[in-house]
Amino acid sequence: MSLRFERLHRDAGTHARRGRLHTPHGTVETPVFMPVGTQGTVKAVGQDDLRALGAEILLGNTYHLMLRPGEELVAALGGLHRFMAWDRALLTDSGGFQVYSLAQSRKITEEGARFQSHLDGSRWLLTPERSVQIQEALGADVIMAFDECPPSKSDRTYLEESLARTTRWLHRCAAAWSRGPSALFGIVQGGLDLELRRRHLDEVCAVDLPGYALGGYSVGERPEEMHASVAEVAPSLPEDRPRYLMGVGTPADLVTAVAAGVDMFDCVLPTRCARNGLLFTTQGRLNMRNAVHARDERAPDPACSCYTCRTHSRAYLRHLFAADELLALRLATLHNLHHYLELMRGARTAIEVDRYAAYAEDVRQRESARART
Amino acid sequence: MSLRFERLHRDAGTHARRGRLHTPHGTVETPVFMPVGTQGTVKAVGQDDLRALGAEILLGNTYHLMLRPGEELVAALGGLHRFMAWDRALLTDSGGFQVYSLAQSRKITEEGARFQSHLDGSRWLLTPERSVQIQEALGADVIMAFDECPPSKSDRTYLEESLARTTRWLHRCAAAWSRGPSALFGIVQGGLDLELRRRHLDEVCAVDLPGYALGGYSVGERPEEMHASVAEVAPSLPEDRPRYLMGVGTPADLVTAVAAGVDMFDCVLPTRCARNGLLFTTQGRLNMRNAVHARDERAPDPACSCYTCRTHSRAYLRHLFAADELLALRLATLHNLHHYLELMRGARTAIEVDRYAAYAEDVRQRESARART
Repeated sequence: MSLRFERLHRDAGTHARRGRLHTPHGTVETPVFMPVGTQGTVKAVGQDDLRALGAEILLGNTYHLMLRPGEELVAALGGLHRFMAWDRALLTDSGGFQVYSLAQSRKITEEGARFQSHLDGSRWLLTPERSVQIQEALGADVIMAFDECPPSKSDRTYLEESLARTTRWLHRCAAAWSRGPSALFGIVQGGLDLELRRRHLDEVCAVDLPGYALGGYSVGERPEEMHASVAEVAPSLPEDRPRYLMGVGTPADLVTAVAAGVDMFDCVLPTRCARNGLLFTTQGRLNMRNAVHARDERAPDPACSCYTCRTHSRAYLRHLFAADELLALRLATLHNLHHYLELMRGARTAIEVDRYAAYAEDVRQRESARART
Repeated sequence: MSLRFERLHRDAGTHARRGRLHTPHGTVETPVFMPVGTQGTVKAVGQDDLRALGAEILLGNTYHLMLRPGEELVAALGGLHRFMAWDRALLTDSGGFQVYSLAQSRKITEEGARFQSHLDGSRWLLTPERSVQIQEALGADVIMAFDECPPSKSDRTYLEESLARTTRWLHRCAAAWSRGPSALFGIVQGGLDLELRRRHLDEVCAVDLPGYALGGYSVGERPEEMHASVAEVAPSLPEDRPRYLMGVGTPADLVTAVAAGVDMFDCVLPTRCARNGLLFTTQGRLNMRNAVHARDERAPDPACSCYTCRTHSRAYLRHLFAADELLALRLATLHNLHHYLELMRGARTAIEVDRYAAYAEDVRQRESARART
């Protein structure tokens, strides 16, 4: 198997795990946050920036890349690593989530999902086999099973049908998978219904795969609902495989899910918020567009060691945002990604010394301080 | 005097000069191209990028900075160098050119220029004294006299009135100037009329100042007209002071003006073109939006040593532009600035070995190759 998951230590007081993912493109220390590089680039920063930040794995989106520039072109140019000049690890999602969140006039059948591109209305068919084929052509180190993420307001009958179909699709993904350098992860759905989650988890984990993910969270439910569900479900995932909570979330969400035994995360929150001027700091959140920062010479986060905080003042960042300058987007993104990666570095250290519960509680308290700043 | 201009060598076959500008914020090797940082940032790149590119001096715009964030705020935070975290040299223009090119409902009187902000329509008055005061508050190493850049279609009567007023304004600037760390440069106007240019040059250079500039070029005339005029006028500027050709131009424009004895240049061309996908290369120009690049694995300029060309393919850049990704803007800007700075490095070396005419001719020929690529 091309992917090897090494378990280093289990925290004494929680389910948190300190691990290491050995991939064909280097080692990934877990728990890990994966910056999202939807179209073969993490918005507003360069591969030089990501390397300097210490990012060990990035995420790419199959839906976007299949539409533009197309996986055939990427494969012809040597695969996604070479295309984007990133020699560390990559993970691609299956395209399933974007078919539901971005594509037009989608239709789900047993065969797969028919949809129209959000770019030009062109018609596409994504099946479990096609999704695996595209992801293997892109050549990511971790690829994801093609699933349906049913709308949260679906009735139970539809949910059960959807889960059964996602399980059948998983078997088709596993059959289509070449077992080459790209390691296939299964995805557990089931919304907030614990009975359905558990049933689907059993079905998914019955397929022997290099890793497993939890999907269908952070789609509108309250954070407490998600935290409670993940705390129930994550510990039931196989101990010896990496566990990936997809599309989550805030710093508080991450440290809480790590306590439930989750190893991998991705989310657009730090990068998207950065472009809107919202910075995550060790003292809560700062909106850099706010006039209160106009004459503030302090670093955005005086406790932060990122390039932005070492170099620039709140006043300068506020000016850049007020003047709609491109540099604002890069500086804010650098900071937020550093904050998320540092959060995971702290988690890894806390687990190693069996003090994870206190670490997670400290992060949650700092986060809730945001209402006061 | 805070600014010292050291003349190192004069090319044997042209008026080209190899020099060194000693400023309170480091040494600037001339001939030099100054990247334009209008609002306290060079669009799409960071100060770390500019430092890595080897930029020794940047330009800031008085008009933009006085409106936002305001020179009082910048001064209160320690000046423009500290505000933008740039410890190398800075030059600010006087605001005169932007009053004519950007401001609304401007009115020129003997007192100065009344105008409305292009941002919010607020009413402002810029006088020679105010311009010098603002620029000294910003704290640039080189500051420019407040002048009028008359429309190129002005009749001769208006031109003569305007030049006489600009001369009177220059005397007011010189009187207002503190002779502190910011060195004041005078500006010679006169359009393409050589008689008016010469007369104004005599008036401007009669005021003893640390440097002199040529303004009012690259405002719509044909390149040959500008080249011919600069070739006539520049050699008459004082030999022992730096000579600055404002707002010019293409690589061919720069190397041609260097042959006439110009030492300093600024232009938005490399940065603005970059954001539109146009790259200047040693083999002519490339439009990175063009589909011809979609599968091209070559560096944008295989002969270039910039980060972009060392790291990424034309195919990747073309994808980033097609997908409207922010990284495209930074990578293209890095390349174009590197190209311009390298062009000046080459010019300096060529002057040192008395081969400048051949160097300039080679650059012009490569530039004209653009029609073929």
